[in-house]
Amino acid sequence: MTHFLPIVRTGDTTFTLGVTEDRCVGPLGHVFLFGGAGLGAAVLALEQTFRRGLVWATAQYISFARLGADVVLDVAAAQQGKSVTQATVTGRVGDQIIFSVMAALGDRDGYPDQHWRDMPDMLPPDQCEQELQRPTQDPNARLRQSLDVRAIPGPARHEIATQTGRTLLWIRQKQAAPVDAAMLAVFADFVPGAIGGALGRGGGGNSLDNNLRVRKIVPTSWVLCDVQAQAAARGFGHGHMRLYAEDGTLMATASQSIVLRTYAAPVSEKA
Amino acid sequence: MTHFLPIVRTGDTTFTLGVTEDRCVGPLGHVFLFGGAGLGAAVLALEQTFRRGLVWATAQYISFARLGADVVLDVAAAQQGKSVTQATVTGRVGDQIIFSVMAALGDRDGYPDQHWRDMPDMLPPDQCEQELQRPTQDPNARLRQSLDVRAIPGPARHEIATQTGRTLLWIRQKQAAPVDAAMLAVFADFVPGAIGGALGRGGGGNSLDNNLRVRKIVPTSWVLCDVQAQAAARGFGHGHMRLYAEDGTLMATASQSIVLRTYAAPVSEKA
Repeated sequence: MTHFLPIVRTGDTTFTLGVTEDRCVGPLGHVFLFGGAGLGAAVLALEQTFRRGLVWATAQYISFARLGADVVLDVAAAQQGKSVTQATVTGRVGDQIIFSVMAALGDRDGYPDQHWRDMPDMLPPDQCEQELQRPTQDPNARLRQSLDVRAIPGPARHEIATQTGRTLLWIRQKQAAPVDAAMLAVFADFVPGAIGGALGRGGGGNSLDNNLRVRKIVPTSWVLCDVQAQAAARGFGHGHMRLYAEDGTLMATASQSIVLRTYAAPVSEKA
Repeated sequence: MTHFLPIVRTGDTTFTLGVTEDRCVGPLGHVFLFGGAGLGAAVLALEQTFRRGLVWATAQYISFARLGADVVLDVAAAQQGKSVTQATVTGRVGDQIIFSVMAALGDRDGYPDQHWRDMPDMLPPDQCEQELQRPTQDPNARLRQSLDVRAIPGPARHEIATQTGRTLLWIRQKQAAPVDAAMLAVFADFVPGAIGGALGRGGGGNSLDNNLRVRKIVPTSWVLCDVQAQAAARGFGHGHMRLYAEDGTLMATASQSIVLRTYAAPVSEKA
C-alpha cells in the first residue's frame, strides 16, 4: 500500500515529494500543496532518516508549492543525543524555500504514560455528516477526495463554533492505511478551517505555521480532532487541536497561527 | 528603565544578550540561560529589526548557554510581505548554536478581535502564595529572584494538578515594567514546571522547544498563566498555556514539549 504521502528517498538525507492533485488544496486558479502534507512529508523524512519516532515538529510556511512541482526535502541533524535527535528539514522547489521544519525525535523507556484531558462526547462517525470544504476548491485541488471529514449534523455546530470556538471533527484516510505521525500532521492542518468557522466565515486563512506534538500512536482508523479556536486580532488567528484515537487515547496535540482571509479580499492575496 | 532582557544591538540584524545570573536557572553546579529568556531576547531582536509586532515564534533549544557567556543573535528575513514578515533568529555562543527561532510578525487592520475562552476563576494574587521553584536552584541561578510567581495556597493545587493536569499561576516582573511579547515568552516557559506538577514530580524536564502565539498585548502588571499539561509518554511531556491580562484579555497562547527528568537520573544528564 502506498503511503498517503509517498516521498521518495534520493540520498542519505534527501527526499522528494511530487505535488500531485491529491495533495493539493486551493480555490479556483490557485492550486498548491496542502501545508499539512508538507509537514507530514517532512515528518516521514525525519523518521526514515533517524529511525526514531517524532516527538514534536513545527513547520514555517514560506511560499506555495504549485501543482506539478517536486518538493525536495533536505534533512539535517542539529543535535544527536543518546535518546533524542533534534533536527531540521528544508522543503524547496528549485531555489525557493517552501517550508522550514524544526523537530525532535526519540523514544525513552521507563517514564509515565498518561493524558489529562479525556476525549469529549461526540456522535460516532456514522451518525455525523460530511464536512464541506470552504471555500469551494479548484477541480485540480483534490486533497479532500482522499479524506473522510465528518461533523455533527445540522446547524448546531456552527452556533457552537461561533460561541465557544470549538469544532469536533472525525477525520480518516479513505484508504485503509495505518495512522502515523505524518498523517496526524495532515489532520493537524484542519485548525484554520475551524478558526474560520468560529469567526462565522467560510475558510480561515493561510497557515503561517503548523505545530504537532506526538504523545504516542495507537491503532485507529478515525481520529477525533477537537479544535479550539483561541483568539483573533491584528489580522491573525490562533488555534489548537487535540487528536484522539477511536479508543479515547490522546495521541497528539497541535496548534497554528494563520493570516486571516476575508471574502472581500481577492483569494489570491498573499499577505 | 532597563528591559528584563537587555539585548544590545551590534548591527542591522545582530544583537547580543549577556548570560548573567538573573537570566539563569539550574540546579547546583549546572547554571544556564532560562529557555524563555532566549526566546524573549529573540522576540525583542525581531521586533526591533522589523518594527512589527510578533504574531508567533517557536524556539528549538539545541544546547545550553552557560553563565558568563554572550549569546549572539542573528536575525534573518525568510519572507517579507505587505503586512507580514516571516523570519528566523539563530542564537550562538561562539560557534555553538544555542537555539533556533522561527517567527512571523505583522499588524493588519480591519479584522475581528476576539477570544473564545474566558479567564478562569482564580484568587487574586494577594490571596495567593509564592510558588516555590523546584528543583532547588544553584545560588547563581537567580532568574526567579526577579519574578513574582504565585499559586493558590495549600495542598489543593497539587491534587488539582495531578488529577486535571491544570495549574494556574499569576506571574509578574518585580520591577514595574510593561508587559510585552518578550516577557510573555519568559512566562511561557513555565509550562515544564506545570507538567512536573501534573506528574507529581518536582521540576519537569528540559524544554525541547517553546512556542508562543500573540493575539495582542494590553496593559497589565500580573499575567494569569493557565497551564494544561496535556500528555506524557516515551520519556517526553507536552503542555499548553493561555496567558491572560488582569482585565481578562487572552493575550497569548503557548505550548512546549519537554524531555522528562526523574530525580533518579543525575540532574546533569543531557538527553
